[in-house]
Amino acid sequence: MRVLVLGGCGFIGSHVVDHALAAGHAVRVLSRSPDRARPPIAGVDYRLAGLDDRAALIDALQGCDAVLHVLSTSHPASAEREPVADVEGNLIGTLRLLQAMRDTGVRRLVYVSSGGAIYGPPEVVPIPESHPLRPIGSYGIVKAAIESYIATAARQGLVATVLRPANAFGPRQTGSSNPGFITTALMRLAQGTPMDLYGDGSVVRDFLAVSDLAALCLHGLEHGAGLTLNAGSGDGRSLAEVLASIERVTGKPFRLNRLPARAIDVPVSVLDTSLARDRLGWQPRQGFEDALAETWDWVRRQA
Amino acid sequence: MRVLVLGGCGFIGSHVVDHALAAGHAVRVLSRSPDRARPPIAGVDYRLAGLDDRAALIDALQGCDAVLHVLSTSHPASAEREPVADVEGNLIGTLRLLQAMRDTGVRRLVYVSSGGAIYGPPEVVPIPESHPLRPIGSYGIVKAAIESYIATAARQGLVATVLRPANAFGPRQTGSSNPGFITTALMRLAQGTPMDLYGDGSVVRDFLAVSDLAALCLHGLEHGAGLTLNAGSGDGRSLAEVLASIERVTGKPFRLNRLPARAIDVPVSVLDTSLARDRLGWQPRQGFEDALAETWDWVRRQA
Repeated sequence: MRVLVLGGCGFIGSHVVDHALAAGHAVRVLSRSPDRARPPIAGVDYRLAGLDDRAALIDALQGCDAVLHVLSTSHPASAEREPVADVEGNLIGTLRLLQAMRDTGVRRLVYVSSGGAIYGPPEVVPIPESHPLRPIGSYGIVKAAIESYIATAARQGLVATVLRPANAFGPRQTGSSNPGFITTALMRLAQGTPMDLYGDGSVVRDFLAVSDLAALCLHGLEHGAGLTLNAGSGDGRSLAEVLASIERVTGKPFRLNRLPARAIDVPVSVLDTSLARDRLGWQPRQGFEDALAETWDWVRRQA
Repeated sequence: MRVLVLGGCGFIGSHVVDHALAAGHAVRVLSRSPDRARPPIAGVDYRLAGLDDRAALIDALQGCDAVLHVLSTSHPASAEREPVADVEGNLIGTLRLLQAMRDTGVRRLVYVSSGGAIYGPPEVVPIPESHPLRPIGSYGIVKAAIESYIATAARQGLVATVLRPANAFGPRQTGSSNPGFITTALMRLAQGTPMDLYGDGSVVRDFLAVSDLAALCLHGLEHGAGLTLNAGSGDGRSLAEVLASIERVTGKPFRLNRLPARAIDVPVSVLDTSLARDRLGWQPRQGFEDALAETWDWVRRQA
């Protein structure tokens, strides 16, 4: 089919493009700016515009069978600083998308939400999709509102799949304004600069190789109609364990800049991914240290 | 204290103004348009502006101790037709309010949310405040997002009370673009025109006299810091029972325009109001038929 990847020049989106091409789909990308991490891919139809450009959005939707919505104009810290911009860029942007999909008759949507920010402090770990949504900052509040609007549209004919990913990492995250813990750590090692560590490293998170997340986007497109699915590794890893793994994989020791623990960091956040496994037969295929090694290769080539 | 009533020229807001004056507060009103239902009240400082007018908002907040936020730029049907306008007017408007309150050091807020739209189809009746929020339309989605932003601001110093009202009715609702079931029925009787009834009248709702809701706003301001409270009558009434009560109170028979039941009308929605009773000693004081009679007096004077 022909798929429109919104945000296809971003970190996660670029991997979704690769997996969509590998699955045999015709791929169009709508992105606010060109891919900073790699040159254009042959055969992909790139369009540069934001969701506030209705004419470009309608034009990009023409002839498409589905939308893979991986676009975010914010990350958790920027959303907290500028909540109005977060609402305008992401929530109103997605409302404009849903309207444009109705107007053009494109009925199939995969939306990449958030598996961390949307739940708030977990009552139970691993966190199932049925966990209450109690987001504690703008990033998660907006994602929750977007999911509610998608659910409303689904009652009126939209065929939607929502993914709630854990912390994705992998090649090409270096171009992001919010590269995440693992890529930041690898960049520090490559640059020979100290890595900031808040608290004692006991905070546990769920790190997912971006290729596994992209694979789930495509599985969701084919077989996930009506589902909301966590996308995680299934394993919790403390930040101290992650740093030790990185030292093993890279053969380089960290210099750590130890800082006080932050109140916003909940102690443990790990997603229950049994629903994606049971309903779609999906599970992470890339081992953690293998994904670390691939990411390290990429980071070193950028340094 | 000095209170700023946002939306103080609206139906609920005008009753909040009355109760704030009766409680001895100095009252300022910020409203997008003058009160259509009555002339200005002596002693009230009226300012005409919307929340998108930052200078007017900052100026209105100066010298105030608290904000009673009863402003809505939408109702459920208009929000569904124009979700972008709903988000811009109410969600972004409230984000601008929260920012302006931080900037001016006004720390006390009472926000009137929604006790119907925010829960979605109830899992249990009467609905407690702990019920999951699963709004099924823009009006409730936006109210839920506003509550989340208020909770976030409360972790940073805001002292907030959130009220989730049932269906409020009473004098001055005639000026509203969304007069509600009871006032619409009374207007039809006064005009001698047929009343639309969807389905067989078995749908059960929770109708609250607006004066009791306004009283709870002032209770919440004084004693409700940190609470989120349902505001309902405690009683469920079927629409058929409501019409029979109206016929008894007015002495006039309805002509009904019977229409098919609507899928969006959940069969029963009644709020559990024990928290407001236990924590604030609040309970509805005006009897249902007494409130009907008062509303009928008002409607007849407008006809």
